[in-house]
Amino acid sequence: MDLKAYLEERRGLVNRALEAYLPKVRGPAFRLSRAMHYSLFVGGKRLRPILCLAAAEAVGGDAGEALPVACALEMIHTYSLIHDDLPAMDDDDLRRGQPTCHKEFDEATAILAGDGLLTEAFHTMAAAALRFEGREGVSLEVMRLVAAAAGYQGMVGGQMLDLLAEGRQVSLKELETIHRHKTGALLTAAVRAGALVGGGSRAEVTFLTGYGEKFGLTFQITDDLLDVEGEAAEMGKATGMDEKRQKATYPAVLGLEAAREWARRLVEEAITALESFQERAEPLRELARYLLVRRA
Amino acid sequence: MDLKAYLEERRGLVNRALEAYLPKVRGPAFRLSRAMHYSLFVGGKRLRPILCLAAAEAVGGDAGEALPVACALEMIHTYSLIHDDLPAMDDDDLRRGQPTCHKEFDEATAILAGDGLLTEAFHTMAAAALRFEGREGVSLEVMRLVAAAAGYQGMVGGQMLDLLAEGRQVSLKELETIHRHKTGALLTAAVRAGALVGGGSRAEVTFLTGYGEKFGLTFQITDDLLDVEGEAAEMGKATGMDEKRQKATYPAVLGLEAAREWARRLVEEAITALESFQERAEPLRELARYLLVRRA
Repeated sequence: MDLKAYLEERRGLVNRALEAYLPKVRGPAFRLSRAMHYSLFVGGKRLRPILCLAAAEAVGGDAGEALPVACALEMIHTYSLIHDDLPAMDDDDLRRGQPTCHKEFDEATAILAGDGLLTEAFHTMAAAALRFEGREGVSLEVMRLVAAAAGYQGMVGGQMLDLLAEGRQVSLKELETIHRHKTGALLTAAVRAGALVGGGSRAEVTFLTGYGEKFGLTFQITDDLLDVEGEAAEMGKATGMDEKRQKATYPAVLGLEAAREWARRLVEEAITALESFQERAEPLRELARYLLVRRA
Repeated sequence: MDLKAYLEERRGLVNRALEAYLPKVRGPAFRLSRAMHYSLFVGGKRLRPILCLAAAEAVGGDAGEALPVACALEMIHTYSLIHDDLPAMDDDDLRRGQPTCHKEFDEATAILAGDGLLTEAFHTMAAAALRFEGREGVSLEVMRLVAAAAGYQGMVGGQMLDLLAEGRQVSLKELETIHRHKTGALLTAAVRAGALVGGGSRAEVTFLTGYGEKFGLTFQITDDLLDVEGEAAEMGKATGMDEKRQKATYPAVLGLEAAREWARRLVEEAITALESFQERAEPLRELARYLLVRRA
């Protein structure tokens, strides 16, 4: 399959849906919706929504039905970036090659834009669920799992751990805990939610969750590798920042070559988890392989 | 009825449920859950949950079934206070007589604790909805309306408007728009959500929503009056702050006596909206009257 064309088509699908769910509004919410819009459309690979749609299709489901959840995941991801970039957190000026939300607007607006996006994610899922009659139970299960993955025992907890680990030595085990929470949980939830919305069997959902877990960990390792090896221009943000901030990373803990090797092995394991799936899971396989060669 | 005893009993009910939904956890989420817990239990009238439970009972529903939604509303309210208190926003050091979350912990932790509470609100509602079989549609409708009330077209949008209005002259109409969003939306949603969970008829839900709207507006007017007239010790925060910050308030725009008079008239209207309800709506009537005499 042509992964580039596939990703482009999917990004278009997701972006059109996001535009529909979050139009720029006039009136009282004008400035806030502009800030939310800015961060949502300033770039982004749309990896979480694409994973979600691919998982739905891997179990024979309809991508259209998974689209609201897919977009909700991107809203949650974007909110987390806005808040992580704040001066009190990672204090980043650039994200995806453009000013971060608090630089383009101001800190208060950025905090509220993040809050607005997180809330809108649940609004989008609930409103869409009300339109799919007979699927209410699945929708609630998906909302529950997305909230669990995004919350204090998932992504938000991971960001807290990451901040607490800054500037001190961490073990490989600690590093895994941080990233399983900070990035892994939402990536895994994207795959699992897609599998559920797509109507996957219990076994299928379990296999896809396994895939999602390997994918999430690989994503973080390759993210760390890109921070060491990537070009700032391609990344759209400063590289070498992890070292400057004394952030715990896989290359720092394991060494460059061992980190690369581990990522390769994890991709193989992710693909193995898809063994019982046929052609329909090909996009998921390609997405896993793509992690090893991505430049941004 | 004995309102004081009623409120105390209800607060106990809500607090026990909140403790159950948000236990302090060990492990990776320890610090974050401690911060969430701190702000959630540092005080609070539990007005939104109490309104939600009272509305459920006013239509003959069961308070126990409304408890998860009631607690979710308090989590959302608490998160909004944590974020509003941040240095980039209202920059408050005291809330309910105690250090605000970013003073007790730090800014990053406070941002994340707010994010965690907002996410946990939806997690609580979704998880509870999965336990009430056959009520999935109502649960989704409640989650949709709570998200709409809390989001950029509701509460979050109101906080943005409030910040934008600081230091300049606003009209009465603008002031109403700010408060309908900032505080009115979530208070109204509390009543409406309770009515829906309680199984109210369409007419009952409409009447109760009308009550909620009057209640929300009165709440804000009396809040402004308390800022002028209240004692800092009783309020648990500095008074006279609105004037110092050149915040638009009802007393400032209307004058003290006209603001008091308007609050009285609104309470009458709120009670009139409950005309078709019998004894079961007595707590809601008392809660409206209480707004005129509350000292904090």
